[in-house]
Amino acid sequence: MTKEELFNIKIEKLNESLMNKIQANWDSVAKPLDGLGDFEKITARIGAITENEHIDISKKALVIMCADNGVVSEGVSQTDSSVTKSVAELMGKRESSVGIMTSAYGDITTKVIDIGIDASAKDIEYSDIFINAKVSLGTKSILVDNAMTSEECLKAIETGINTVRELKEKGITLIATGEMGIGNTTTSTALLIALTGCDINEVTGRGAGLSDEGLKLKKAVIGASLRFHDLLDVNKDVVTNDYAFNALCAVGGLDIAGLVGVYIGGALYRVPIVIDGVISAIAALTAELIINGTKEYMIPSHSGRENGTQKVLDVLNLMPVIKGDMALGEGTGAVMLFPLLDMVLALYNKGVQFDNTDIVKYERFK
Amino acid sequence: MTKEELFNIKIEKLNESLMNKIQANWDSVAKPLDGLGDFEKITARIGAITENEHIDISKKALVIMCADNGVVSEGVSQTDSSVTKSVAELMGKRESSVGIMTSAYGDITTKVIDIGIDASAKDIEYSDIFINAKVSLGTKSILVDNAMTSEECLKAIETGINTVRELKEKGITLIATGEMGIGNTTTSTALLIALTGCDINEVTGRGAGLSDEGLKLKKAVIGASLRFHDLLDVNKDVVTNDYAFNALCAVGGLDIAGLVGVYIGGALYRVPIVIDGVISAIAALTAELIINGTKEYMIPSHSGRENGTQKVLDVLNLMPVIKGDMALGEGTGAVMLFPLLDMVLALYNKGVQFDNTDIVKYERFK
Repeated sequence: MTKEELFNIKIEKLNESLMNKIQANWDSVAKPLDGLGDFEKITARIGAITENEHIDISKKALVIMCADNGVVSEGVSQTDSSVTKSVAELMGKRESSVGIMTSAYGDITTKVIDIGIDASAKDIEYSDIFINAKVSLGTKSILVDNAMTSEECLKAIETGINTVRELKEKGITLIATGEMGIGNTTTSTALLIALTGCDINEVTGRGAGLSDEGLKLKKAVIGASLRFHDLLDVNKDVVTNDYAFNALCAVGGLDIAGLVGVYIGGALYRVPIVIDGVISAIAALTAELIINGTKEYMIPSHSGRENGTQKVLDVLNLMPVIKGDMALGEGTGAVMLFPLLDMVLALYNKGVQFDNTDIVKYERFK
Repeated sequence: MTKEELFNIKIEKLNESLMNKIQANWDSVAKPLDGLGDFEKITARIGAITENEHIDISKKALVIMCADNGVVSEGVSQTDSSVTKSVAELMGKRESSVGIMTSAYGDITTKVIDIGIDASAKDIEYSDIFINAKVSLGTKSILVDNAMTSEECLKAIETGINTVRELKEKGITLIATGEMGIGNTTTSTALLIALTGCDINEVTGRGAGLSDEGLKLKKAVIGASLRFHDLLDVNKDVVTNDYAFNALCAVGGLDIAGLVGVYIGGALYRVPIVIDGVISAIAALTAELIINGTKEYMIPSHSGRENGTQKVLDVLNLMPVIKGDMALGEGTGAVMLFPLLDMVLALYNKGVQFDNTDIVKYERFK
């Protein structure tokens, strides 16, 4: 895929009348109006994305993009890059945190994608769900170089788009996003500042558990990287798709680029994509800035501990429904939305209708 | 049970070192420290309540207290009291909103308790899960009389306590609360103001969907009722257990009193009780004010749309993890916490330990 092909992708607007129809269906269920609040709105969006008022999310998936980040060599994380491979291999056996959590819930199709782990493919233990789609052996340090070339970035985005297409062909109608990559709260935070001009002190967090010293260094590295790439003090009006793409190449990561592809793929193939924590959220914002309209196909899940998450979701005007101060990654927050949606949709699909009871339907005043 | 017997109930403090042990267990799971945030704290509390670091919530229950409120005759709700009976009967067939939602998730032991529905028992369709424990045929209008007598209130509280004991004997280790009672956002809001002295305009909501006119009337009725019972402008320092109990009798309801009993029973028999929406939350606050220490045994779930909920949870210092702008009642928000806790506890119980990986454990700096 060339940059021009990417930029030429057009996203359809959602069908508002279908969303209204779904809201009307909700109102006919014997319960107080808007009783399930934001969940009713989320399901209306899912119905509009999948173009069906009979909402079926029985087949769900989780896509986890795994990659290493050269910036780890600057000391921005408590652990070193080898952890990315170790955790990804655990993921491939469904033994990582998210694997155990999804197994406890039900059959979630999982794709763990090596999109740039810093280890030779022959040294990595792949599995039926852990796939080699390596673009490179991780990015370069954003402090001194572009994280990746334009070609590498496009390849990662294309991998994300194709992953959604393949899952859609298997009947998947809801995809949660996850990531694993030591150092990726540094890259994603740098990208967030590049894209929104927000304050470095406001959005830089402790990642997987930095000390005060470590946090100070992380901020210094992010600041210096942004200065090096001339991405500080952005005027919001100049955030064109070209600017966003270049910022992604400069200070992003292959995991983020892969997720950008997943979001664009979701909009292209009409599969709702669930945002996880800060990295996934920043990838979502990047996707929207590269291909306008993508955000209509995103579903927020949790607000997360990293300060950047809420910031991004505010920009995207998406309200998360889980607020657990979580910061685990891997898609753990996103998959926690699954059972909630299943419970809510059971009511939508099987709820007793006012017309079949002696209860008088509530009136909508507002 | 006499009032003296009630007031003499003593609640044990939770074992802090057991909570710390559970947090240490969490830290040994191969994931970022505090990665599951508030969920780690909730599970530590559940472990301390059930006095076991091996946390087992496989047997869960939902208790729904159903009662009518005389104040409905003042026109404070969009529908009339007959809806309470209709919905309770649906609940008894697992066909109400919460019945369908829990059935979609798994086997949740459900107790729907007629603690004061305004219909003769012979006219009500009870079932294996819908039980007659009628204290009366609903309360009197709080605008002109005490909602219930002291004896009625004690009987309702005792019913709640005994319900928890019976469920505990069946091996239940987690109970969600729910309620059904047309008019109960009016009674619970009046009770909240009586107990906290908060502003009527701040905490009075639209219930199941009042118009602007209806909301105005509801506020007027609440204000007049509180003046009638001399419960306005309370000095927080005077909220003794006797004051709280009398306020419950004056402006509360049998459903609320039943839930107060469930919370006290949870603390007495060491079963964590999940708070639902505004009515359940106000019952929780009332329970804490009547029997100090009860709140340690409560688990928050969602923040709800009614303004009072967050107010109460703030007073109790409990942070909900679901934020869905919901206002359905029946315990729907509380049971949505169940799958989240099951997923989280799967990780706690089966998560890979750092000691069994080549990943270096994170250090705790703070």
